[in-house]
Amino acid sequence: MPQLALIRHGQSAWNRQNRFTGWVDVDLTDEGEAQARQSGALLAAAGFKPDRAFTSVLTRAIRTMNFSLEGLDRVWIPVEKTWRLNERHYGALAGLDKDETRAKHGDAQVKIWRRSFDTPPPPLAEDDPQHPAKDERYRNVPAALLPNSESLKMTLERVEPAWEGMIAPRLAAGENVIIAAHGNSLRALIKFLFEVSDQDIIDIEVPTGNPLLIDLSDDELKPVSARYLDPERARTLPPLP
Amino acid sequence: MPQLALIRHGQSAWNRQNRFTGWVDVDLTDEGEAQARQSGALLAAAGFKPDRAFTSVLTRAIRTMNFSLEGLDRVWIPVEKTWRLNERHYGALAGLDKDETRAKHGDAQVKIWRRSFDTPPPPLAEDDPQHPAKDERYRNVPAALLPNSESLKMTLERVEPAWEGMIAPRLAAGENVIIAAHGNSLRALIKFLFEVSDQDIIDIEVPTGNPLLIDLSDDELKPVSARYLDPERARTLPPLP
Repeated sequence: MPQLALIRHGQSAWNRQNRFTGWVDVDLTDEGEAQARQSGALLAAAGFKPDRAFTSVLTRAIRTMNFSLEGLDRVWIPVEKTWRLNERHYGALAGLDKDETRAKHGDAQVKIWRRSFDTPPPPLAEDDPQHPAKDERYRNVPAALLPNSESLKMTLERVEPAWEGMIAPRLAAGENVIIAAHGNSLRALIKFLFEVSDQDIIDIEVPTGNPLLIDLSDDELKPVSARYLDPERARTLPPLP
Repeated sequence: MPQLALIRHGQSAWNRQNRFTGWVDVDLTDEGEAQARQSGALLAAAGFKPDRAFTSVLTRAIRTMNFSLEGLDRVWIPVEKTWRLNERHYGALAGLDKDETRAKHGDAQVKIWRRSFDTPPPPLAEDDPQHPAKDERYRNVPAALLPNSESLKMTLERVEPAWEGMIAPRLAAGENVIIAAHGNSLRALIKFLFEVSDQDIIDIEVPTGNPLLIDLSDDELKPVSARYLDPERARTLPPLP
């Protein structure tokens, strides 16, 4: 029975500053590094042995993976990095302080941008230096696929091919997989796996520094059990499908 | 003109203890981590921008790569790990203190094992727990390819397919490549690139914490210039071919 571990990256400098981050490549804080090491220690204590790793192309997730694999003494497994596991793209909101944004646009509007399923924030201008088309890490991604803002729905749609094409085949081949990613790309994976509705997915959240370990059925890759490794800090899980 | 950076991993716990290491997966010391960070800083100062990374499946080289890429702010590039870039396999000598080995086998014999081109050390027993066939990181490597001891010549021969099949095609496509590896696997790459004789290669050594940066010709991937990034700690380089 293949196992899948989902790890959410720890605190970044902009998490601490309460700023919208998205695709901006902000590094972990010292606390974020400690949370990543904690994830590795919890996975090692659980006896988890990943065969293959997937992460985004954002530094905070990649370094969370590196620290986790060090804790597992398995830095030698293959690690694949894909933009499809990036955080949701926050469009023109990226870099803005969340409180200032509320003061400027109003609570109700910011709540829609943050919590609605299919309303993207205002787009980043094509000539903005932070536009993904100007970042060499995306140079092999077709321009039409690069977002300038994403709703949760759009995030799910671009995570899905990574699940279908890269991750699920490895699990189907019997490999254990570890994924270090972001609040919304993990939400996408949980939505597929647990068959969560569009309404309910927004309330599901993987905590930082506390991996979610899922046992999958051999045949259909459906979750047959799932647990947060630190039960005292566990969040609510959707029911098994 | 593609660039190739070669980094030798920093001090490991067994380097410090003066023990033969080879394929035993000994981690970096704090000094080894500092040397790896130094490599990243030197490469960043030189303006080097790697597109792709290759390393061994041994923790000390992988972590050296991770620290180097952090220094370059490019942890997001693809990193491929291959057993073919591992250190020379030291056979039954692995784990032994070098002075004790000299006391037991004699200076002359140990010098032959360490310095001859084609005499491997005594082999590791097939049922030894340290035999590569018992290590899951090699489970996809055909058993006939897994060494139980290697001469420098044997090391060169198994590094060569990694150069031909994995690394050279990327350079030929115009990518800049960074490699973090070991004294003898780097010696192999230098032998191919600089066309060094069997006699001379044993005296060529990449220092730790001091990357060798090589500019290669577009057409034949021959070195057209090469330098150690910290010139004050540079070793002798073979003449350009």
